Amino acid sequence: MDKINLRNDYNHAAHPRVLEAISAASEKRFPGYGTDEECAVAAKIIRHLTGQADADVHFMVGGTQTNLTAIAAFLRPHEAVISMDSAHINIHETGAIEAAGHKILTIPDAGGAGSGTSDFKNTTGAGSNIEAVGKASTEGKADTESVRAIIESHTDEHMVKPKMLFISQATELGTVYTRAELHALRDVCDEYGLYLYIDGARLGCALTSESCDLTLQELASLADAFYIGGTKNGLLFGEALVIRNPALREDFRFLMKQRGGLLAKGFLLGIQFRALLEDGLYFELARQANEMAARLDAALRTHGIPMLTATVSNQVFPMVNKDQLRVIEEHFLFERWGGEAEQGTPIRFVTTWQTTDAEIQAISELFDKKGRTLRLIQ
Amino acid sequence: MDKINLRNDYNHAAHPRVLEAISAASEKRFPGYGTDEECAVAAKIIRHLTGQADADVHFMVGGTQTNLTAIAAFLRPHEAVISMDSAHINIHETGAIEAAGHKILTIPDAGGAGSGTSDFKNTTGAGSNIEAVGKASTEGKADTESVRAIIESHTDEHMVKPKMLFISQATELGTVYTRAELHALRDVCDEYGLYLYIDGARLGCALTSESCDLTLQELASLADAFYIGGTKNGLLFGEALVIRNPALREDFRFLMKQRGGLLAKGFLLGIQFRALLEDGLYFELARQANEMAARLDAALRTHGIPMLTATVSNQVFPMVNKDQLRVIEEHFLFERWGGEAEQGTPIRFVTTWQTTDAEIQAISELFDKKGRTLRLIQ
Amino acid sequence: MDKINLRNDYNHAAHPRVLEAISAASEKRFPGYGTDEECAVAAKIIRHLTGQADADVHFMVGGTQTNLTAIAAFLRPHEAVISMDSAHINIHETGAIEAAGHKILTIPDAGGAGSGTSDFKNTTGAGSNIEAVGKASTEGKADTESVRAIIESHTDEHMVKPKMLFISQATELGTVYTRAELHALRDVCDEYGLYLYIDGARLGCALTSESCDLTLQELASLADAFYIGGTKNGLLFGEALVIRNPALREDFRFLMKQRGGLLAKGFLLGIQFRALLEDGLYFELARQANEMAARLDAALRTHGIPMLTATVSNQVFPMVNKDQLRVIEEHFLFERWGGEAEQGTPIRFVTTWQTTDAEIQAISELFDKKGRTLRLIQ
Amino acid sequence: MDKINLRNDYNHAAHPRVLEAISAASEKRFPGYGTDEECAVAAKIIRHLTGQADADVHFMVGGTQTNLTAIAAFLRPHEAVISMDSAHINIHETGAIEAAGHKILTIPDAGGAGSGTSDFKNTTGAGSNIEAVGKASTEGKADTESVRAIIESHTDEHMVKPKMLFISQATELGTVYTRAELHALRDVCDEYGLYLYIDGARLGCALTSESCDLTLQELASLADAFYIGGTKNGLLFGEALVIRNPALREDFRFLMKQRGGLLAKGFLLGIQFRALLEDGLYFELARQANEMAARLDAALRTHGIPMLTATVSNQVFPMVNKDQLRVIEEHFLFERWGGEAEQGTPIRFVTTWQTTDAEIQAISELFDKKGRTLRLIQ
Repeated sequence: MDKINLRNDYNHAAHPRVLEAISAASEKRFPGYGTDEECAVAAKIIRHLTGQADADVHFMVGGTQTNLTAIAAFLRPHEAVISMDSAHINIHETGAIEAAGHKILTIPDAGGAGSGTSDFKNTTGAGSNIEAVGKASTEGKADTESVRAIIESHTDEHMVKPKMLFISQATELGTVYTRAELHALRDVCDEYGLYLYIDGARLGCALTSESCDLTLQELASLADAFYIGGTKNGLLFGEALVIRNPALREDFRFLMKQRGGLLAKGFLLGIQFRALLEDGLYFELARQANEMAARLDAALRTHGIPMLTATVSNQVFPMVNKDQLRVIEEHFLFERWGGEAEQGTPIRFVTTWQTTDAEIQAISELFDKKGRTLRLIQ
Repeated sequence: MDKINLRNDYNHAAHPRVLEAISAASEKRFPGYGTDEECAVAAKIIRHLTGQADADVHFMVGGTQTNLTAIAAFLRPHEAVISMDSAHINIHETGAIEAAGHKILTIPDAGGAGSGTSDFKNTTGAGSNIEAVGKASTEGKADTESVRAIIESHTDEHMVKPKMLFISQATELGTVYTRAELHALRDVCDEYGLYLYIDGARLGCALTSESCDLTLQELASLADAFYIGGTKNGLLFGEALVIRNPALREDFRFLMKQRGGLLAKGFLLGIQFRALLEDGLYFELARQANEMAARLDAALRTHGIPMLTATVSNQVFPMVNKDQLRVIEEHFLFERWGGEAEQGTPIRFVTTWQTTDAEIQAISELFDKKGRTLRLIQ
Repeated sequence: MDKINLRNDYNHAAHPRVLEAISAASEKRFPGYGTDEECAVAAKIIRHLTGQADADVHFMVGGTQTNLTAIAAFLRPHEAVISMDSAHINIHETGAIEAAGHKILTIPDAGGAGSGTSDFKNTTGAGSNIEAVGKASTEGKADTESVRAIIESHTDEHMVKPKMLFISQATELGTVYTRAELHALRDVCDEYGLYLYIDGARLGCALTSESCDLTLQELASLADAFYIGGTKNGLLFGEALVIRNPALREDFRFLMKQRGGLLAKGFLLGIQFRALLEDGLYFELARQANEMAARLDAALRTHGIPMLTATVSNQVFPMVNKDQLRVIEEHFLFERWGGEAEQGTPIRFVTTWQTTDAEIQAISELFDKKGRTLRLIQ
Repeated sequence: MDKINLRNDYNHAAHPRVLEAISAASEKRFPGYGTDEECAVAAKIIRHLTGQADADVHFMVGGTQTNLTAIAAFLRPHEAVISMDSAHINIHETGAIEAAGHKILTIPDAGGAGSGTSDFKNTTGAGSNIEAVGKASTEGKADTESVRAIIESHTDEHMVKPKMLFISQATELGTVYTRAELHALRDVCDEYGLYLYIDGARLGCALTSESCDLTLQELASLADAFYIGGTKNGLLFGEALVIRNPALREDFRFLMKQRGGLLAKGFLLGIQFRALLEDGLYFELARQANEMAARLDAALRTHGIPMLTATVSNQVFPMVNKDQLRVIEEHFLFERWGGEAEQGTPIRFVTTWQTTDAEIQAISELFDKKGRTLRLIQ
């Protein structure tokens, strides 16, 4: 029997309505590089949904490429990005931002004693990640005090100049920024002349989270630029970058082409985003992913398994003991999320609109009420 | 009525069998980033077809990205690429190679009097290109004498060090390198320690050209690395990079990720290439595109319209007079290929497996035997 | 006997008054990185001499570093530089500009039949250079028609965007731009929104040339930025970059530091430039170098030796036959300037304020009136 | 009265013997770019002193440039450098390493509670620096456990690949690595295939420190590459890079030129290093600087002023209270070394071979035995 795949939210092709939209267009011919009507319509929908009537909208294939292209386009060579230690750009993009010439200044996810260094705490294994054991207060989110401290400490031309705050909504830990938090970060950015950029690879799950009091329109009004992630929420591939700040718009397509991100058959992005956004499918899928995460969280708690952070979007971080880990490994695909700790080993499950109740039920069948492992499923 | 689109070979989605293969996989879940079984099978097919049993095969989304990633991976900072002036990397990738830090040393397509400068001869209009009016002998192909002269002239550390010869098969002018030509270039590369890299965006049309006496296996044995273009020959997107030279293989996936080219749902590339290659669809589509180009060429010649270069693959370059240009513009989408010259204005038509006889017939209806324009089609 | 060194203008330490100024300061202590009083005074002198009361002045160590730092600071990643093929940045800086991410679009020095390719014509040997045999009309100088043609041919985001015109005054061929030529280039730059940057490695010799009707003030008013070369005109090292365009001034010192060009003991640059500029030594030395070049030119012509270009500054380009070349090689250090041609082999002599009449006389002793070689000097 | 300048070790021109050597050469003419006899002799001396008979030796102008050029030459694009948070390359080179495309993975200098973020702890003011309050155990030195942990956590192509360990001898905190420590780091590097690079901006003071049991020869045998700093120890400017690892030597001069670091009058570097090294002046000056630091340390302790770290080379880090700070500011130039802490505000004094006993005596005149401030010096 195949293992149940809760490893990530990019393990399947696309929602059927998205595939149908592509098939339906297969007899047509289109202009190249996103200059087609489908992209125009999709961009119009995005401008409407975000309330940014004159924003630039660019469709790109993947998140790393979107981030690196935006940063290459927005910053001068000596300007730096502030992000969390755990940020995707800092850990999991193989130095893409540095390869574009820019330093990342990081806020540690956990500052506690023994937390190790800022770059590698407790990370292990292929595709593993950074955790913030013992500092529930940050939960992967940037705080104004830390941002301010980094900016204030960069005072002259012997150091880089902080110019962009990069945050993810939802974060790498599945947490979400609230209205108040985002407004506070915007204020710090305004005070010091920084751009606020939001990585929205999981923006749908963030905005439909019950913990999130932000609307898409409000978020859009606070960011200089952000992207709406499609790859992890129903599309074959695709991220829609929205550039609100007019100062950042000039010649962006030159940068897309230069960094290899201007898709020849750009109309495929327009078709997909139109299918995803014109009838609310985007929010529907995200809400469903969150709901399945909530059920998974509840199932795990039933067996007395604690969580690294509260589950508020589509990522679930149980802390399991050795026996639990062993039995889960036999039946599920997932990620380790840092090394073994006293409270248990943190692991990550990710749910999507495709996650089934049967898959969640399967986890319950592994443990008794006290979390002791039962007979293995064959 | 819509204009007939002969502008390029990326104006439609994909071949039905490719779309079906994706749909058929839509219930499955896959490992990420190309570590899946579909990619493994597709790579195996490619190793078999190329006769390179131990080559590395990497699947990427687009040509510019493949070129820039390969060059970034293969060269040290002071090492330069030799290419034709008209090469895609030199003109139409927005400085992607320079953005990766490398200089391109160019061989002029035309050295004749009045040819203007090496970077911009006779180029006009959006998406326009470089031509080689008056030097039929090069036809967009690198020659050993020019390559040797560039290498010999770079003699010390005050200049860059030529380290890669970049050629396209077919070239930007639709011409193809023969066995003898490719062997001669390989010999020069060996003599001076250069890598030979072949951009195969239109490799299918080159290999199925009647002017080409090269097999895929022989080409593969002569290149250090090359890619098999899928975007322009049946796929939604996708290029398969084959790295034959073991010295160039190390850590290539790091570079793919760093440059934004490691597709999250990499299995989509595996699925597509498998569908394209396992039953010979790839060669079938290319042959069909060439056939339609040959018919278009014949139709144009019937009306006395001369060609910039002989039509040997899926690109056709008629030289039209003002009246002809005007009537063609009313009915067709195509590219200008440089500015007006005495012999006429060169334009480019590109055919694909989707091009129909009716579309080619439509061109004949515009002209009489002497190339005089007839009543316009309504 | 040592060979007579007419190979270049950086083969000796510095003018005695410059060395004395450094020695005189050896008991003092200074703030670091050019924030000292000597740099302030030298900058003030430069603002006065150039008539640019509010220009930014930065002191750097060498020309390649000045060029690469300025271009890295002034251009966005997709913006390109236009220069002559023979420009120092294109041939003799080992791809420094490309390593900073920018493409160079080149104007060929010679467009005649058989001129070979744009990147390497007739260049041979260590430290060899580009020549312009047979096209006396360009003489290494950019013309408005070529500049305009390059700009006009770059029309969309698939190509780089020309944004800077880079010229050298004097050029690599020792020629100088006149007032009319420089105004015309400025006009083209204004028309298309390009920056005009002038490499002044040999600015002193250009401005004191009898062929030059430009003053330093007029040149300064036409360039967005330029540098006053010290290394080749009396200093141990040092180039003074003047940034006139306010839009290009921001944060320039960050770029200097980032590219390794902010000298710790920056006061050494201030001291040297002050000594060079405050009493007119700069122009005196340049005029003397030109005078010696004129005498050398006259001496060579006496023996019937033709010149590649007219001698107007401190570089002299005789075309010598094989016998002449052989005897010159026995007695002098010089540069080859391209390969053998029908008219002879071009070579380059460079004179400085240190060149003596005896050294020039020595050349006359090698030949008779008809240029036949005489007995060799022992 | 001028303030007494103990701010850094690059506040004066050069040792008289160095200036004399330059003056003595002022009548000579030399080949360019370091191909002269003076550089050859200086390199030979360095090979002899380091016991590395076949090492490559390159002379460069400054430390930032040496570091960035070496890293650009040695690493592939996805390879990263491990350094201390407080390393010069991480904080005080304006992102030079990232501008060359490489990520720096950092070991925190202090992990204690309240230490803030890894990039900016307690830094204030122009030219300010990083401190390590409360973690005397690291003292700015890399430890094998931290290095190993960083390497082990980078496991796949989604992350950069650690490939170089960068350390400074002496460190930014004036501490020095011992034989045992350096051997241990070498072993970790060997275990994982990393290069060990040593920034020797203050190598003289490190090697002549009484706390250092390393010889130059032993250090040279352990590093893949390192540089001998001249700027801070007697020269006008100049750092001598020694590349021991043959795999790192190829084409290094290409990189020097490309990054603007190949000095036209390279013979100036050869002359200076010869003067510095041929009679032991280098060690003499360093020893004298250390001696003055020891006296300054003793003087401060006499007044009950504690130290941030033990004084072992030419940097002294007293922790002063507000009154002490105020009176010191009136009479001395120095650096703040982080923000105010409970134990006092750390400041940095740097001594050189030029520091006088009178200057040190002056500090004693400011305080009584209990560190209370006395009448101010007029």
